[in-house]
Amino acid sequence: MTVITLTTDFGLRDGFAGILKGVIYGIAPQATIVDISHTISPQNIHEGALTLARAAPFFPAGTIHIYVVDPGVGTQRRPLAARLGEHTFVGPDNGMLTPLIEAAEQNEKPVEFVHLNNPKYWLPKVSRTFHGRDIFAPAGAHLASGVLLSALGPRLSDPVRIELPRPEKTDGGWIAHVAAIDVFGNLATDLPASALAGRTDVRVRVGGAEVDGITASYGHRTPGSLIALLDSEGYLEVAVVNGSAAQKLGVKVGDPVEVVSR
Amino acid sequence: MTVITLTTDFGLRDGFAGILKGVIYGIAPQATIVDISHTISPQNIHEGALTLARAAPFFPAGTIHIYVVDPGVGTQRRPLAARLGEHTFVGPDNGMLTPLIEAAEQNEKPVEFVHLNNPKYWLPKVSRTFHGRDIFAPAGAHLASGVLLSALGPRLSDPVRIELPRPEKTDGGWIAHVAAIDVFGNLATDLPASALAGRTDVRVRVGGAEVDGITASYGHRTPGSLIALLDSEGYLEVAVVNGSAAQKLGVKVGDPVEVVSR
Amino acid sequence: MTVITLTTDFGLRDGFAGILKGVIYGIAPQATIVDISHTISPQNIHEGALTLARAAPFFPAGTIHIYVVDPGVGTQRRPLAARLGEHTFVGPDNGMLTPLIEAAEQNEKPVEFVHLNNPKYWLPKVSRTFHGRDIFAPAGAHLASGVLLSALGPRLSDPVRIELPRPEKTDGGWIAHVAAIDVFGNLATDLPASALAGRTDVRVRVGGAEVDGITASYGHRTPGSLIALLDSEGYLEVAVVNGSAAQKLGVKVGDPVEVVSR
Repeated sequence: MTVITLTTDFGLRDGFAGILKGVIYGIAPQATIVDISHTISPQNIHEGALTLARAAPFFPAGTIHIYVVDPGVGTQRRPLAARLGEHTFVGPDNGMLTPLIEAAEQNEKPVEFVHLNNPKYWLPKVSRTFHGRDIFAPAGAHLASGVLLSALGPRLSDPVRIELPRPEKTDGGWIAHVAAIDVFGNLATDLPASALAGRTDVRVRVGGAEVDGITASYGHRTPGSLIALLDSEGYLEVAVVNGSAAQKLGVKVGDPVEVVSR
Repeated sequence: MTVITLTTDFGLRDGFAGILKGVIYGIAPQATIVDISHTISPQNIHEGALTLARAAPFFPAGTIHIYVVDPGVGTQRRPLAARLGEHTFVGPDNGMLTPLIEAAEQNEKPVEFVHLNNPKYWLPKVSRTFHGRDIFAPAGAHLASGVLLSALGPRLSDPVRIELPRPEKTDGGWIAHVAAIDVFGNLATDLPASALAGRTDVRVRVGGAEVDGITASYGHRTPGSLIALLDSEGYLEVAVVNGSAAQKLGVKVGDPVEVVSR
Repeated sequence: MTVITLTTDFGLRDGFAGILKGVIYGIAPQATIVDISHTISPQNIHEGALTLARAAPFFPAGTIHIYVVDPGVGTQRRPLAARLGEHTFVGPDNGMLTPLIEAAEQNEKPVEFVHLNNPKYWLPKVSRTFHGRDIFAPAGAHLASGVLLSALGPRLSDPVRIELPRPEKTDGGWIAHVAAIDVFGNLATDLPASALAGRTDVRVRVGGAEVDGITASYGHRTPGSLIALLDSEGYLEVAVVNGSAAQKLGVKVGDPVEVVSR
């Protein structure tokens, strides 16, 4: 039993994700397929990178993650497979793996990249516009059924990397950023909890509002309160209890979040 | 093979449901996971309760249902596991099981509740904001892999219950309520078909409109007609043939539905 | 291991698709269920037909496809099972299989239709409004667990067919149509690539705009460009690079697409 995950911008209506699963089960009938997301914003590699990087670590060793956010499909951009620690990733070489590659390197895990250019492991007919179906799904399924990574193509050493936003240290604290806005309207920032080192006596400024202190959890304040807390990934978060901070503050991904000592 | 279902307000974009599945497959690789819904309105325990109560009975005996609509996460609200007849439920103790508990009690099925406080069956690190991932998914997966309910924590006897809307008997009939509005805009009410006892000579008043009589099915009237019929759950329903009653009448969940003799 | 796919207009919120899966696993625990789409526009048989016809061929031989877009539920419309080549389809007899039946006939594959009227393979209690749950899911699951097609009911020879849009040949080219608009806003047309016979020196007119020539893929032109290309199904497509042609041109399914020689 091998788990294969899917992270795409295909949406849910048109059946594209179902098609990938049909291709996978035709090659690897015993695979277990899990959807991470099919509603990444169209062509938004940064959003896809963050979503995949947050989900992948919770899957068992040996999981194969297929990702398809692929504005460069049909051009010279390379199809890629990457082994990062105990997980394997298959998708376009467009930087979407950057945070996972950085994490593997920081944790000194084995890292290996392959240029997926062996058509033996693709569908017989490859279109110019749907490599998820024609290259990535079959390659991932062949890996799940025991094909070696090295059989899929030659090694490569220079996967594309994208620039990730990072918080800047200031005199009195940090300028962080809104890294993601979830379905509840909670604002994840890129400031790791470790930066605060347990301090809760800070002020957080975002979208013209200011929050005083760090709260333990949503339920510790009354509904409608704007709070700052540490999210489940270990980053600073700004939220409205039982409401939407994104809506209340009118902010978007990339907006600055200032953190200063009280 | 054990079926595990998921009912949450996580949405489909952020990957949260996928993360739960990664955690589950890491513990119970042979589980079969089914999504009931991930688009319960945020923090809406009543809506989640109704959705879960309508779906659960159609699953095989032995199914484990994980539910996560959890505004109280990180507070003193208890994590709960419940055995209700041949199904097991895992989630926050916030009343979301109320209709299922009532149904089990009415049908004199065995009922047992456990306070999930044994950290042996949680993820090693538990956040303040994502108990779906850290407590409920692992506990459900351990149950699926054979751990006994009693191992997860001590019994409890006072699960939280919410007040459910119920139809009132009037002189000439009932004041029922819109219990749910489905994707088609059909209005499910809380009036059971048994209350009508086979009578079809009634008038149904909702949102300023009146429907005369009970129709057998959508296709028995012309498109656009406002009709009353008995839904697939055995409750009175108001619908527009090939259209949306919710949109036509501008009603919402909780609005009154008056049923009177003709 | 048998794959069962689901294509419906149930939406994702109300738990209806989950209920079908509960019914299926109760009968065929070893089935593997794949969602093709649950967000077909309500009661839109044409849209469902196209979505299913595009996805089904990518599934392995032996796959059972359950489809439920069913405005006629509860009327005299027949429940249907169809064997088309190596795949089996189960759903209402309303024309939604038309493109798949035509393709099977053109490719001279075996074709067989059965009127699903044997209640032995339904749920014990059948509602007037939810045959997906009460008839189609159990029938599909029984097929997956080895029941013969002929056991489900008598043969029928006249399945309902719907009229499909087809391109018209003109003096200088074709009048084709927008056949589908995907989540990216790309416009699929009903003009097969074979009609162009490799020619790229054409002009494509749609929504008041004109595109000159056929482009190899999205990434060959700058973001924002309106292009014509051949889609992954082998049909002419009109797209905006990294954008939405549907939004830019304000067109809808069924609108004409004129193709003329340059």
